Amino acid sequence: MDLVVDGLEILSPAECWELAKTERVGRVGVCMGALPAIFPVNYAVDDDAVVFSTGPGTKLRAAATNAVIAFEIDHADSATETGWSVLMVGRCEETDHATTSGVVEVPRPWADGDRDHLLRLSCEFMSGRRIAERSEDGR
Amino acid sequence: MDLVVDGLEILSPAECWELAKTERVGRVGVCMGALPAIFPVNYAVDDDAVVFSTGPGTKLRAAATNAVIAFEIDHADSATETGWSVLMVGRCEETDHATTSGVVEVPRPWADGDRDHLLRLSCEFMSGRRIAERSEDGR
Repeated sequence: MDLVVDGLEILSPAECWELAKTERVGRVGVCMGALPAIFPVNYAVDDDAVVFSTGPGTKLRAAATNAVIAFEIDHADSATETGWSVLMVGRCEETDHATTSGVVEVPRPWADGDRDHLLRLSCEFMSGRRIAERSEDGR
Repeated sequence: MDLVVDGLEILSPAECWELAKTERVGRVGVCMGALPAIFPVNYAVDDDAVVFSTGPGTKLRAAATNAVIAFEIDHADSATETGWSVLMVGRCEETDHATTSGVVEVPRPWADGDRDHLLRLSCEFMSGRRIAERSEDGR
């Protein structure tokens, strides 16, 4: 039986990874000084890591390289008011195409511009939630 | 003429607010200690602020109340590989339904459970990007 807390079903790491493979856009959360910031990126799952691209001089690259970052992926369905989210936290390092052999397809940014620097998040903490179906009384 | 940097069109604050009103799910970014975390929430736009609900004992509420948070909203279209994102940063405070008179409809969480605490982000910094149409050579 699935664990449900406050209407949210707690997902296992295996379920989180399966869901992570179904989306293409995630969000990187970083602390720049004491201030938080969030950047959307295209990503791919490579074994127990997430790989995404940045440009050479971006704020994202400066903030994320060799830092602990949060990576969030979610899916929301407005019609049914259901959805899920996965949060990973871990250290992020620059990598290259040669070492991401497990990636079927390295994520290609949708926007133009130089974004040929790959960053790899080694997931050290992971949690996931899915909105549980509402009970019959509508609560 | 719109400013385009590295394939991303820079959006004005007015454009950001218009886009923010078109979505229902955003992501709160907080720094908990030195560690970043991201929580998806339902939200509504209330004048120059964003309002969202949390439960009484949530990590989100503890991390966001009286703190500077990031709030990110985005829209991605996988078919056309286009999209936009808006990032707000500002201080977040607990509020109540009476003071959010500008909100047409206070955001109702999709999940069951007690999430009757409203938080209000006063946006002090805002930036937005839209993926520009690719030029004809495909780059």
